Amino acid sequence: MQMALEQARRAAENGEVPVGAVLVYQDRIIAMAHNLTESRRDPTAHAEILAIREACQKLEQGRLVDCDLYVTLEPCTMCAGAISHARVRRLIYGAYDPKGGAVDHGGRFFQSATCLHRPEVISGVSETESGELLKRFFLPKRNTANLY
Amino acid sequence: MQMALEQARRAAENGEVPVGAVLVYQDRIIAMAHNLTESRRDPTAHAEILAIREACQKLEQGRLVDCDLYVTLEPCTMCAGAISHARVRRLIYGAYDPKGGAVDHGGRFFQSATCLHRPEVISGVSETESGELLKRFFLPKRNTANLY
Repeated sequence: MQMALEQARRAAENGEVPVGAVLVYQDRIIAMAHNLTESRRDPTAHAEILAIREACQKLEQGRLVDCDLYVTLEPCTMCAGAISHARVRRLIYGAYDPKGGAVDHGGRFFQSATCLHRPEVISGVSETESGELLKRFFLPKRNTANLY
Repeated sequence: MQMALEQARRAAENGEVPVGAVLVYQDRIIAMAHNLTESRRDPTAHAEILAIREACQKLEQGRLVDCDLYVTLEPCTMCAGAISHARVRRLIYGAYDPKGGAVDHGGRFFQSATCLHRPEVISGVSETESGELLKRFFLPKRNTANLY
């Protein structure tokens, strides 16, 4: 999770919403990514999606059955769907996201009947550190402009 | 929708689940794609995701506010999330997907409180043609092996 937080910090330095993700396979990191939605002008370029795609390329397979995903924020609906499609074994995430999260909030996708693969979920790991990064990122924007 | 069906047919020819998507902006097609999950070994390479990414690159913007997405199958959770993130104006889709769909089935994401942008939705357009393509694709596989 420390590596995922490091990715999130890099995102913030580049003006991206600070969320980082790391994929681990057999005790080794095989993919790391942070949000790139702004710089790539790609609304699908969330940290989780980028890490999943990178890991699949590295392992040369479309499924990540023995992989664990560490991410600093509760995944949204899009990313929860991708995690399920990729057959990720375990999801470990940091801050809760009551507004946009889809694991322990909203549609709780992994608990729904149309979810064909449910990863094991561990929530709230490094929650404070993950959340503080997001708060620090959004606070000055909220004070200076009505952007969000 | 005929162009999306043509994309779906191409997917089937290449051994991919036959789903096609087309994005329209100001009465012009700006992106077309079909499923490439098998050949790219990428579980996120659904037709909708690929079309959204292509359209954003073409328009040089991360939001598709005046764009309409035609897709032959009801989008899954991952794609419904992406459609919302991309601010797609209107979603027109073909076959219903009670098992994996997330628009009129499952979590009905666009009707949920954590959905920040809801496209207008028109369902069941060319439903029979879209569904027949999928049935024809899966039928021989079901008869010959226990793959699905």
